[in-house]
Amino acid sequence: MTAAVDSAAASTSNVLVHLGNDGIARLTLNRPEKYNTLSVALMAELQDTLDQLSINRSVRVVILAGSGKAYSAGHDLAELQACPSKDEAAALFARCSQLMLAVTRLPQPVIACVNGTCTAAGTQLVAACDLAVATDTARFAVSGINLGLFCSTPMVALTRNIPRKAAMEMLLTGEFIDAATALRLGLLNRVAAEAELDAVTEALAVRIARQSPAAIALGKQLFYRQIEAGIEAAYSLATETMARNLVGEDARAGIEAFIAKRPMPEWSEG
Amino acid sequence: MTAAVDSAAASTSNVLVHLGNDGIARLTLNRPEKYNTLSVALMAELQDTLDQLSINRSVRVVILAGSGKAYSAGHDLAELQACPSKDEAAALFARCSQLMLAVTRLPQPVIACVNGTCTAAGTQLVAACDLAVATDTARFAVSGINLGLFCSTPMVALTRNIPRKAAMEMLLTGEFIDAATALRLGLLNRVAAEAELDAVTEALAVRIARQSPAAIALGKQLFYRQIEAGIEAAYSLATETMARNLVGEDARAGIEAFIAKRPMPEWSEG
Amino acid sequence: MTAAVDSAAASTSNVLVHLGNDGIARLTLNRPEKYNTLSVALMAELQDTLDQLSINRSVRVVILAGSGKAYSAGHDLAELQACPSKDEAAALFARCSQLMLAVTRLPQPVIACVNGTCTAAGTQLVAACDLAVATDTARFAVSGINLGLFCSTPMVALTRNIPRKAAMEMLLTGEFIDAATALRLGLLNRVAAEAELDAVTEALAVRIARQSPAAIALGKQLFYRQIEAGIEAAYSLATETMARNLVGEDARAGIEAFIAKRPMPEWSEG
Repeated sequence: MTAAVDSAAASTSNVLVHLGNDGIARLTLNRPEKYNTLSVALMAELQDTLDQLSINRSVRVVILAGSGKAYSAGHDLAELQACPSKDEAAALFARCSQLMLAVTRLPQPVIACVNGTCTAAGTQLVAACDLAVATDTARFAVSGINLGLFCSTPMVALTRNIPRKAAMEMLLTGEFIDAATALRLGLLNRVAAEAELDAVTEALAVRIARQSPAAIALGKQLFYRQIEAGIEAAYSLATETMARNLVGEDARAGIEAFIAKRPMPEWSEG
Repeated sequence: MTAAVDSAAASTSNVLVHLGNDGIARLTLNRPEKYNTLSVALMAELQDTLDQLSINRSVRVVILAGSGKAYSAGHDLAELQACPSKDEAAALFARCSQLMLAVTRLPQPVIACVNGTCTAAGTQLVAACDLAVATDTARFAVSGINLGLFCSTPMVALTRNIPRKAAMEMLLTGEFIDAATALRLGLLNRVAAEAELDAVTEALAVRIARQSPAAIALGKQLFYRQIEAGIEAAYSLATETMARNLVGEDARAGIEAFIAKRPMPEWSEG
Repeated sequence: MTAAVDSAAASTSNVLVHLGNDGIARLTLNRPEKYNTLSVALMAELQDTLDQLSINRSVRVVILAGSGKAYSAGHDLAELQACPSKDEAAALFARCSQLMLAVTRLPQPVIACVNGTCTAAGTQLVAACDLAVATDTARFAVSGINLGLFCSTPMVALTRNIPRKAAMEMLLTGEFIDAATALRLGLLNRVAAEAELDAVTEALAVRIARQSPAAIALGKQLFYRQIEAGIEAAYSLATETMARNLVGEDARAGIEAFIAKRPMPEWSEG
């Protein structure tokens, strides 16, 4: 992967951005001394980065990694403590929720590359990503309850990833689960030894970066829309989307190549 | 199981129908040389067969099997390629979606008996069945994305069977999962050695065929209805259904027999 | 745990109530000779007990255990048999559904402590609890179908705990799953040897009893509300709840203590 930092998505102090020539954007949460807590500044920078990537057609997959020993310890407690009122607090949590929804809404798939411990909104970020790979020493908690602050917003993402009773236990006890448990419950796609984490994540990203970006964008958007709909409405939406996909340039060329036993074409830019 | 092909659900070229005297209808997708692709003709025949079975009170369970080495490779790509417009494409996918919903709406439970590889709408068909048993060499993909065609309609069924991140990975990568993984994720009820597949599937069917068809039909219909409702509405629907079931002939006789320690009665014809 | 039976939640013939000084209320279904069936009398007493506990601020966690060899065999079949009409039957099932919803609505978390076999509404009760621990010899069925009575109301709770095809199999076949399977599917949080069951359950309860009751009550209520909402609405609800939690007494004190590296404060009474 060659380095190619794009001026349209430049690294900031809190978020390192690396745009590879292979269509993979690697973002790194860069507050290692603060366990990559999601400070207001970091959240704003990550939001800006995602906004820029969303319209960058050379980017096909995003990896969201952490620096240092932790992946993310969630909100910056000093900032939470400094909230003077309920309205200020709500504004801060709303900003974080918008960031999580921005991950979901990004046309490109986002893969969490989890290098270490995740707590509270750190676990939420992993749950909000489309896919997640973690090192076998990573661990996950929604531990706000230990401080008297129930992880309400992290719960939204967590309960959409793992079974109810497992989620409830994490939320009520604040205890950690290990990477193997997170994999079994559905929070992770892969667990890798620390030395293999980047390679395993990248292999998954490369596989996806080879697909048609237009088809991936259609499908990802529909994924989250249809899953909230009743099954009949979901099929209506999916029928419409799949028909649009089929008559588009990429599927036409792809099916023709498949039938002719030729390699897949270069996909359109999406 | 004695052979008894019923004129009301006759075998066609694409779907073999065997109605046993034990209340088990065994349907077999019969395009082995085409990997049992769901051509328009096959879908129409399967739809007709299900329509007929739905009103055949001697049928208590349906097994949906495949012939040859594959279970089903999904849509017929030549037919997809031949769709002249988005509207024609939408009509084709809508027909397939209606077929999947017909499996769900059938009063009798449907068990997929998966003899081999499933791709795209083939995997969808397994997900759409009420239960599924597979040979240990079966494997499952939603691999349209490899051709630039995201498996949007298969996703509707798949995401209602397995956890989100596992479904997303399958949809984005197009890669196969094996039978053991499909079992662990919730796509299958049982995995059997190839030589045992029919026997394991039939044992499950026999067990269900012994139950009250009226109670099974009420319960199956409610299953899919209540699962989409909020919990309070779900309880209202279930309370109404269960009360109706309780005062019906079968439950009255069944509870009486149980209390008297007698064998269960012959159930009504539903 | 010292005995301290409170007049506000006295033991009745069908439900034993033990209120410990540690904030843990231990309820025991007390019809061992009847496999703790949920008779109308038992349901009424359990409902009254929960109503009283819901406003008892010294109670922080509820354990719901069974006496004798079974946890609960579900409804009393003689009472079902005696229902003269569909309306009476609906009233009985509605009472049971309200009881299950009362467990969900209770401000305090409820942990099922499962000492043995669960059938029908007995399995439903485990599913309706927030958390569940079972002995390794416990087993679970929704077996009404064996008597011609599909477990419609138990299905509502069960299908919100375990994957669809596993739930459907249990409902259609009436067969038991063992404790290890129930754990794997998501119906249980922990499985323990019989001699360890009470200790394992209590350790979980003690952990939760140490948390802020106000934060737990906010979080539990939101858990079930947000899980039924679309993700955007869920985030709106969670943002509001978390902001309210943050500016409350407990989280303010908890975060201050954490930052100052002091032990957590005594929480307010909620």
